[in-house]
Amino acid sequence: MTDKPTMSNQRIARAREAMAVAGVDIMVLSVGADLPYLIGYEAMPSERLTMAVFPATGTPRLLVPELEAPRVAVDPEVCRVQPWGERERPVDLIAAMLAGASTVAIGDHTWARFLLALQEGASSLRFVPASTITAPLRLVKDHGEIALLTAAGAAADRVAARLAAERFSGRTERHLGRFVADALVEEGHDTAAFTIVASGPNGASPHHEPTDRVIELGDTVVIDFGGRIGGYCSDTTRTFSVGEPSTEVAAAYEALQRAQQTGVEAVRPGVTAESIDTATRRVLDDAGYGRWFIHRTGHGIGLEVHEDPYLVAGNHRPLEPGMAFSVEPGVYLPGRFGMRIEDIVVVTANGGRRLNESSRALVVVG
Amino acid sequence: MTDKPTMSNQRIARAREAMAVAGVDIMVLSVGADLPYLIGYEAMPSERLTMAVFPATGTPRLLVPELEAPRVAVDPEVCRVQPWGERERPVDLIAAMLAGASTVAIGDHTWARFLLALQEGASSLRFVPASTITAPLRLVKDHGEIALLTAAGAAADRVAARLAAERFSGRTERHLGRFVADALVEEGHDTAAFTIVASGPNGASPHHEPTDRVIELGDTVVIDFGGRIGGYCSDTTRTFSVGEPSTEVAAAYEALQRAQQTGVEAVRPGVTAESIDTATRRVLDDAGYGRWFIHRTGHGIGLEVHEDPYLVAGNHRPLEPGMAFSVEPGVYLPGRFGMRIEDIVVVTANGGRRLNESSRALVVVG
Repeated sequence: MTDKPTMSNQRIARAREAMAVAGVDIMVLSVGADLPYLIGYEAMPSERLTMAVFPATGTPRLLVPELEAPRVAVDPEVCRVQPWGERERPVDLIAAMLAGASTVAIGDHTWARFLLALQEGASSLRFVPASTITAPLRLVKDHGEIALLTAAGAAADRVAARLAAERFSGRTERHLGRFVADALVEEGHDTAAFTIVASGPNGASPHHEPTDRVIELGDTVVIDFGGRIGGYCSDTTRTFSVGEPSTEVAAAYEALQRAQQTGVEAVRPGVTAESIDTATRRVLDDAGYGRWFIHRTGHGIGLEVHEDPYLVAGNHRPLEPGMAFSVEPGVYLPGRFGMRIEDIVVVTANGGRRLNESSRALVVVG
Repeated sequence: MTDKPTMSNQRIARAREAMAVAGVDIMVLSVGADLPYLIGYEAMPSERLTMAVFPATGTPRLLVPELEAPRVAVDPEVCRVQPWGERERPVDLIAAMLAGASTVAIGDHTWARFLLALQEGASSLRFVPASTITAPLRLVKDHGEIALLTAAGAAADRVAARLAAERFSGRTERHLGRFVADALVEEGHDTAAFTIVASGPNGASPHHEPTDRVIELGDTVVIDFGGRIGGYCSDTTRTFSVGEPSTEVAAAYEALQRAQQTGVEAVRPGVTAESIDTATRRVLDDAGYGRWFIHRTGHGIGLEVHEDPYLVAGNHRPLEPGMAFSVEPGVYLPGRFGMRIEDIVVVTANGGRRLNESSRALVVVG
């Protein structure tokens, strides 16, 4: 076992190697997953700036609002915490630390207002997205990360199994959404992150938010949900039929299931991220549903629900053992119905290993 | 009643007046509250960019990922929706729309990576934070906004009343936090936004997150919570004593309650935002607790939990009728206990009107 300060320092050392290669003098990180990945602390999204400064050498510093300092548990061997008071301007404190640098990497999700403030009066500084440094590090998960993703996947599967035993008809999307959110926590997640419950025609909107629509017999219902365990995400989608599906729905679902299976089977080290999208899409194209599959096949997952690698046309990155991503084709008929099947898959030396194993059949519910 | 498209167009017209005054040619908005304020649609925080472009004249455009287009219900009289496909680069589409502009206002919370991408190869463009345009508009609430803030405040008060009837001892902070989150929705919020439950020594951390600490007799417990109704936020804090408070806690609380009351009574049109902070702080200074009051007195509230005006030293902005903000002094003794009282207050011609009216006494619970 690696203790946490040692793990943080190893990750910071790897980030510094990447900074040296990329010609980045200093990296500054605020909200987003890079900071917890490196030091185990996540910045609150707030007008009160939290920002860590990673110089090429020497101990990193974490500037935090004074009132949040009591909640920061960061090992002083990893990072020195520097609280700032309500009358100080934290951007000025950061700007002073950037003096002498020429290229600065800044966290991708940092608020634009803070980047603009840092750029003001520092026209010689060049800023680049920190993901150029951090994304390659985070792309391949270590054993501890995969263990957390696996635990999260299993907890999500238990939610899917409970859903299959529920009555759907007569309940609103919102009501069922609350059931899912509660179940995510009851089954072991620290927090529920999102719950899409898209019934009947709403199913054709892939990112639908639950409404007061009452689910009725004959509906197809897409439920996409996830939470976090130890910071790592689950994300799975199952599709339900309230009563027996129509011939049309059953036929589309059969093609969808084959497409998802084909995508998962195509996963192995060395093939490109794009190739999984191609393999999945071809099945739906051949079955005549291609035009209704309006999104990429998947996204990487880890500390963020969506991160590298994206399984999308144009992404020629070869897959490597330890990468984790969703395989989630869908079919969406505007105004009528939608369906999606989503599993998280980890690349192993032998191929893809699914982290979701709840039934992928079209589940018939009452 | 003003219908929604008309309201949006009026707000956009006011934003354009402000753009003209500030010399801003185009405004681009992504995640954050400015976009829903102007057009009623909130961008999903995502690597798939959602961004609205407001030129000086002509119909604004909203670029959204194709898969999210089905969930966008924006009146075409207000804004034209332009979906982009998974193989397009939305930043390039936006950059093309900025051609010919010299000054661009960009939403404060826009991800830094998108700002950097827009700046790349457009070195003649000057970017400024969109809040320079939008914050003055959002600062003074209209009747509809105040009605929603009032409804949210009343719903939060019902949660506070229910809390006062609960048993605290033997329950974890996390368990009580879930009770509060559920109650926020049961009492009428669309969503629960946050729940701070800080017991015993954890109370000294103003932004504490609920843990598995078991609450016990003798604890002081700070509970700070809020949700959203129609987009508008509630935010209130009450402090509870599990069993009778010690003399020390009771004395500190007495000073705190006087400080909060003094702050609310100081609210009236024409005085500065800073002056409310000064009035509140003076009471705690005089009572000997000033050094334990480690944050500003309050923050504006509306579509965001924290927005202008901030009640903080150095903010000389005069208060105006229609402004809404928290008045929330606290006392935090590291390693021992904390306490805070928070109400939302709206400025009226006659002074401050509280939107929270649940008991501000130190509530003794079991």
